[in-house]
Amino acid sequence: MQKTASSSTLGPDGLDIAQSFFKPIQGASPPPPISRNTKISVVGVGNVGMAIAQTILTQALADEIALVDVNADKLRGEMLDLQHAAAFLPRTKISASVDYSCTFGSDLVIVTAGARQITGESRLNLLQRNLALFSKMIPPLAAGSPDTILLIVSNPVDVLTYVAWKLSGFPSNRVIGSGTNLDSSRFRFLIADHLDLNAQDVQAYIVGEHGDSSVALWSSISIGGVPILSFLERQQIAYETQTLAKIHKEVVEGAYEVIRLKGYTSWAIGYSVASLARSILRDQRSIHPVSVLAKGFYGIDGGEPFLSLPAQLGRSGVLGVTNIHLTEDEAIQLQESAKTILEVQSQLGV
Amino acid sequence: MQKTASSSTLGPDGLDIAQSFFKPIQGASPPPPISRNTKISVVGVGNVGMAIAQTILTQALADEIALVDVNADKLRGEMLDLQHAAAFLPRTKISASVDYSCTFGSDLVIVTAGARQITGESRLNLLQRNLALFSKMIPPLAAGSPDTILLIVSNPVDVLTYVAWKLSGFPSNRVIGSGTNLDSSRFRFLIADHLDLNAQDVQAYIVGEHGDSSVALWSSISIGGVPILSFLERQQIAYETQTLAKIHKEVVEGAYEVIRLKGYTSWAIGYSVASLARSILRDQRSIHPVSVLAKGFYGIDGGEPFLSLPAQLGRSGVLGVTNIHLTEDEAIQLQESAKTILEVQSQLGV
Amino acid sequence: MQKTASSSTLGPDGLDIAQSFFKPIQGASPPPPISRNTKISVVGVGNVGMAIAQTILTQALADEIALVDVNADKLRGEMLDLQHAAAFLPRTKISASVDYSCTFGSDLVIVTAGARQITGESRLNLLQRNLALFSKMIPPLAAGSPDTILLIVSNPVDVLTYVAWKLSGFPSNRVIGSGTNLDSSRFRFLIADHLDLNAQDVQAYIVGEHGDSSVALWSSISIGGVPILSFLERQQIAYETQTLAKIHKEVVEGAYEVIRLKGYTSWAIGYSVASLARSILRDQRSIHPVSVLAKGFYGIDGGEPFLSLPAQLGRSGVLGVTNIHLTEDEAIQLQESAKTILEVQSQLGV
Amino acid sequence: MQKTASSSTLGPDGLDIAQSFFKPIQGASPPPPISRNTKISVVGVGNVGMAIAQTILTQALADEIALVDVNADKLRGEMLDLQHAAAFLPRTKISASVDYSCTFGSDLVIVTAGARQITGESRLNLLQRNLALFSKMIPPLAAGSPDTILLIVSNPVDVLTYVAWKLSGFPSNRVIGSGTNLDSSRFRFLIADHLDLNAQDVQAYIVGEHGDSSVALWSSISIGGVPILSFLERQQIAYETQTLAKIHKEVVEGAYEVIRLKGYTSWAIGYSVASLARSILRDQRSIHPVSVLAKGFYGIDGGEPFLSLPAQLGRSGVLGVTNIHLTEDEAIQLQESAKTILEVQSQLGV
Repeated sequence: MQKTASSSTLGPDGLDIAQSFFKPIQGASPPPPISRNTKISVVGVGNVGMAIAQTILTQALADEIALVDVNADKLRGEMLDLQHAAAFLPRTKISASVDYSCTFGSDLVIVTAGARQITGESRLNLLQRNLALFSKMIPPLAAGSPDTILLIVSNPVDVLTYVAWKLSGFPSNRVIGSGTNLDSSRFRFLIADHLDLNAQDVQAYIVGEHGDSSVALWSSISIGGVPILSFLERQQIAYETQTLAKIHKEVVEGAYEVIRLKGYTSWAIGYSVASLARSILRDQRSIHPVSVLAKGFYGIDGGEPFLSLPAQLGRSGVLGVTNIHLTEDEAIQLQESAKTILEVQSQLGV
Repeated sequence: MQKTASSSTLGPDGLDIAQSFFKPIQGASPPPPISRNTKISVVGVGNVGMAIAQTILTQALADEIALVDVNADKLRGEMLDLQHAAAFLPRTKISASVDYSCTFGSDLVIVTAGARQITGESRLNLLQRNLALFSKMIPPLAAGSPDTILLIVSNPVDVLTYVAWKLSGFPSNRVIGSGTNLDSSRFRFLIADHLDLNAQDVQAYIVGEHGDSSVALWSSISIGGVPILSFLERQQIAYETQTLAKIHKEVVEGAYEVIRLKGYTSWAIGYSVASLARSILRDQRSIHPVSVLAKGFYGIDGGEPFLSLPAQLGRSGVLGVTNIHLTEDEAIQLQESAKTILEVQSQLGV
Repeated sequence: MQKTASSSTLGPDGLDIAQSFFKPIQGASPPPPISRNTKISVVGVGNVGMAIAQTILTQALADEIALVDVNADKLRGEMLDLQHAAAFLPRTKISASVDYSCTFGSDLVIVTAGARQITGESRLNLLQRNLALFSKMIPPLAAGSPDTILLIVSNPVDVLTYVAWKLSGFPSNRVIGSGTNLDSSRFRFLIADHLDLNAQDVQAYIVGEHGDSSVALWSSISIGGVPILSFLERQQIAYETQTLAKIHKEVVEGAYEVIRLKGYTSWAIGYSVASLARSILRDQRSIHPVSVLAKGFYGIDGGEPFLSLPAQLGRSGVLGVTNIHLTEDEAIQLQESAKTILEVQSQLGV
Repeated sequence: MQKTASSSTLGPDGLDIAQSFFKPIQGASPPPPISRNTKISVVGVGNVGMAIAQTILTQALADEIALVDVNADKLRGEMLDLQHAAAFLPRTKISASVDYSCTFGSDLVIVTAGARQITGESRLNLLQRNLALFSKMIPPLAAGSPDTILLIVSNPVDVLTYVAWKLSGFPSNRVIGSGTNLDSSRFRFLIADHLDLNAQDVQAYIVGEHGDSSVALWSSISIGGVPILSFLERQQIAYETQTLAKIHKEVVEGAYEVIRLKGYTSWAIGYSVASLARSILRDQRSIHPVSVLAKGFYGIDGGEPFLSLPAQLGRSGVLGVTNIHLTEDEAIQLQESAKTILEVQSQLGV
């Protein structure tokens, strides 16, 4: 199924019209052994995986997109649905297989596959099942694309990024979790919507765990270069802690609300991950809040937790972590977030 | 729900931070009465409607996208999911409402809503239910956007485009069905895939009914300017009629296969309709096989059928139909396709 | 010359092949009286005007681009050179004329025309000549496009934007000078290049006069949300005032250096103005440092100077000015910059 | 000059703020030895070279653009002018040097450098001077980027592409001349302008020599899939040979006219070459009329002429030549065109 395996033919058996239609020029070299095309693999073709794959396709970020899933029918349906749009898009090779071999030679492998919580199942039990899944999945992915960047989207994203790091044997700069990149976009949208301006003019980070213990960095919000908290102070505009807390709450609950309303999230995570793919593959050296090995930053120690920090991303993955200023309160919250994650990690036995 | 109705506020009641953050310059005029922003409305936020809306958003084709559906929860979930991506996209206003008023002033209204077939229901009965739906939907849409182009995607697309034309009272050039634009892309993909070339270098049309009676125009296929049938003849490459028929069959069954495999189609129809939106709103004067009032073309008479013909699309909708050459056989098939559609139309009583 | 006035014809006189090739459908409405296409006019087709026009064309920001210049040959040559690329671009109508009537109905008029300094000529004399030029140019441009935004690029940009405002009779929000938008990009590039990161992650403004009295707002530089001055302080990294001054000097001299090396500037101003065109026409509500009526801001009073401040731009032009915090020193420099401009204005007698 | 060699620094000597601002994460691998970034070099920064470089930059086709020229001042001016736009564009590394070493490791090398005709100089003498120039230029370019594609734009393009092929020692598929890709766009524009449709719906080729002996393939023109000559016949629209000849004449003279009017051509050749760069580097497998080793095609024999034929382009350069049908007359014209080129080649002594 690697290709559409089109059995259609314009001519009778034994005659290849393609060979007749195009003739090679004289003195041409044989096809090169190593392709330099940009290849992205997406593992898991659920709503999240497909929103990512389709956004990457629309934005023409890759020359080849490979899809992997255990559900062969769904997989082939999604591949065909993308391929059918060929006349409306720049040419991109789209392949799909239940076998990991179709991902070989990837520049970027995006993992969205994960077990779903069964009613009554404990969080830890779910995590154990995902650990089992990753144990089967990550080693062949890493072996088939030894130079790839691994971008983990499956939840709980921080712990699973740690797991992927351990299982892959990759250096830490090549294993990244999508983390709070989307939470930060929600944060920026809510502030921009309130002030009726462009969200790209708002700089604001959610860091820490992608989840309930995430930390809103109020002290670093700026709009068009204006730090917002000191602006409010100078303007003698009183604001109440609970108001700020309410906005953060809206961000944290944003995902839950969308899931409650439409059953899942897809579009925003698709755009979020495509933006990470662009920064990595086009070597943009841009700063994104994503899940990275956080040991040694901001007083985080005593283990190897992955959690979101503002990181600079480029062709070799994580280039560094921004030395942002945190208030004492923010630093404490971040360290608490790290502890929460470390506790879970310690139960895994990876 | 027209906006996120964000009740969050950075300051206490009575103090608008936005007013404090931005100050108007002196001598500025009041906001203009008539906006010249480009507005697209998408009616129906199922898989098809949302793939269209999201592709239009990614390609930045509109300044405002309004979503309408009867399911308020699903609708709000989809709106939020798109809005949350604000930091990754050019600014586009995204609104949503169960009320048609949110579509007012649209430049383009895309209708994807439609009843679903109930097990055991006759096709005619289904059509009657869709007719009832359109009777409620089209008049307020047309009244609220009297200068809009109506682009119908709901199936059966040809008959429902006719219905929308009648109900809207619009001139025929402003009511278009997505028709065989996607079928033609599938056709081009299959040929391009076979010859290992870019689908955009393949010119090939499926015309007539979007469905089983569609007509593949073999005589007009050209690749990079080479008419393929005469090429095969000159090269003395024999081809068999059943081989050509098989490719056409694969096109017709493409949609069924995707539905069988993944449950619905979404991505390719999303790209297809976005390409139509671009040609219309950016006045591209491009040729697309879409469903238009076909009376008087290619020997089609005796009624007012809508079916797909290669039409030139621009800012005022259908600019004209291409005077393409059909073989006698193709013309007969097209006339048959028209008859099939007219029969259904005659049963509607519109 | 409004069109290519192609006298070529595929058929003999009296037979229009176009009418034969496309046939209108029945019941189509006549062409609409008012087009809603987006039209940008560029006045002056020198290196700056053409870099702007070509960048706008590449980025598909307009449906029609009209070029105006007094040099008919150069004008027609530039129009043809853009038109010849039609097969590589989305369709954009490109027209050109020595007559202002080709700009009528523009959404945005970009003025790059201006007299050049004659050896030995005083700055004031040059300005008087440009005033004479604007007196002939602005009234017909404003009359032909009464709802347009006027974007002035000609130098000295601040005073000429004021002149255009007076001559047009437009409300102040619809007359904008390109100002220090490009200086700020140079500033951001130098900082980003030094730190090896993406310039889009750097927020930094040059404000005030576009020229020698411009003001670098050190206090508002932030990188990925980190205010750089307070970062340096917290890290106990000493920095010397002359180092900062040196970077500002490099920005101010950037234009002079490029002119000395290649004879003129073109590409960067082309991208800068295209970014303004996008924010305005696509209603991005983004913040740009551009020349606006500055009266009443930051202690500037005693006249109506135009100079660059961080302004929010959208479909109706200037939406407001950002209430950014200036240090006392920065505020004084800005007021001095305003005085310099007011002195020149007072000599004009507009 | 490989970089801006910015000597500016935010901190005092000996303290690197960048190292302080970003901290590496633990366990990160050292930077990879081989970059997989896409690199394009442009040799010659005249009007043509810069229009190409700027269009490639706007369209974000490369991660790195290297500029080479013998004029160090002009070169540095152009580099700075592009770099100053950093805040408005995706990050692209822009380097420049008088030394070929800055092109090392390119994926695509575009050569626009060439000697200019001196008044009274014979064409052959000019060619001999260009041959001398290429003899110095091509070997180090080929040695520094042994896997690159060479794209020759300098005129006379066909003969110089042959020269570059010989001097590089590259297989023929990796040496391409821009040839009649632009002439064909002019041809498509003139036809589209006449019929008021989108030039991208017109398929039409100019082949053979890029110059006076070029051949218009009337028999293969199609519009939206309609072969135009047979359409005219069927519609009983008479057309006269001289009318067709006139359109071809307009195409051939298009370049001369633009040069006469504005002094040089730039924009259209910039877009044309950028479209070739995209097809090659993004492996589009698209068909373009470009200058390739034509030996053995369409009855061309007796030497190794380079001239334009419809060729399929992808990541490994020329994938093949389209087996298009020519009328007997067209084939004879093409063979004559080849003879003209071979005569010149034979005088070179390469």
